[in-house]
Amino acid sequence: MRRVIVLGIDPGSRRCGFGVVARTGSRLAVVESGVLVPGGLPLAERLGALLDGLTEIIARAGCDEVAVESVFSGASARSALALGQARGVVLAAAARAGLRVFEYAPAQVKLAFTGNGRAEKTQMVRTARSLFGVRADLSDEADAIALAVCHLAHRGRAPLPARRRAGARA
Amino acid sequence: MRRVIVLGIDPGSRRCGFGVVARTGSRLAVVESGVLVPGGLPLAERLGALLDGLTEIIARAGCDEVAVESVFSGASARSALALGQARGVVLAAAARAGLRVFEYAPAQVKLAFTGNGRAEKTQMVRTARSLFGVRADLSDEADAIALAVCHLAHRGRAPLPARRRAGARA
Repeated sequence: MRRVIVLGIDPGSRRCGFGVVARTGSRLAVVESGVLVPGGLPLAERLGALLDGLTEIIARAGCDEVAVESVFSGASARSALALGQARGVVLAAAARAGLRVFEYAPAQVKLAFTGNGRAEKTQMVRTARSLFGVRADLSDEADAIALAVCHLAHRGRAPLPARRRAGARA
Repeated sequence: MRRVIVLGIDPGSRRCGFGVVARTGSRLAVVESGVLVPGGLPLAERLGALLDGLTEIIARAGCDEVAVESVFSGASARSALALGQARGVVLAAAARAGLRVFEYAPAQVKLAFTGNGRAEKTQMVRTARSLFGVRADLSDEADAIALAVCHLAHRGRAPLPARRRAGARA
């Protein structure tokens, strides 16, 4: 049975949540999830470590596709720049591995994951735990898992080689 | 005589100017400059191409250090995000190559390059042409060359292994 593996990423240059979710038939399983925390390094080195970390996860887990949040509009210029720097590294890492990137709005992700498009952070974390038994104490990790699940829900069951457009491409 | 090679970068996900400037003793020379234009690809692929392009230039030119503009504050959230995405890739590429990144404010760069901290784009382009004979028709390219020159002016003549702090680290 065809197995599809999706990497969901919640970017941040200080904390970057990731969740690798596999679907085999109708079964979903979290293969690996966590938070990349480059720690107290200067910005450029944090971003370099993020690039390495994501490249390693993509190769190790054999990811087929990547899901990220579409960009919100209500941010300040300062936080948009910080988010952008991490997001740029995420998109470049995916592209370098030959993976397509799909974007989903926060409300879409919450709805697909919890049935509630306005779910709070605590509900996202609880859902990650109850669905997959993941000890996702951190909302970055739960959000990343939810992104992967959302993409798997939207992409349907088309085999990978069929260029079915499951979401907007980044 | 010790040769120091600096890569100046003016980031953008559609157009990214670069200028490789070498100093040998008191002599400056542009080794290579241009604009990376990933073209009509989707965003993730443009950023991936930018990562590859910069990694190749750093290796080919044997760059020692990288100079970028410090971040302006007057931007909209949308343009800050776009700039951030390209800037994140630039910083990650430098860090992965083991190069330190130094930041300079636009006025510092203009002053070091033209003697006028409020130089217009046309003056920057004319200066790149007259100083180095570079056919820098594009201001992204002239700005990148100016960044490298500015860093060479500020870093002094300390040999590379000495961890002299020439500018603010990114």
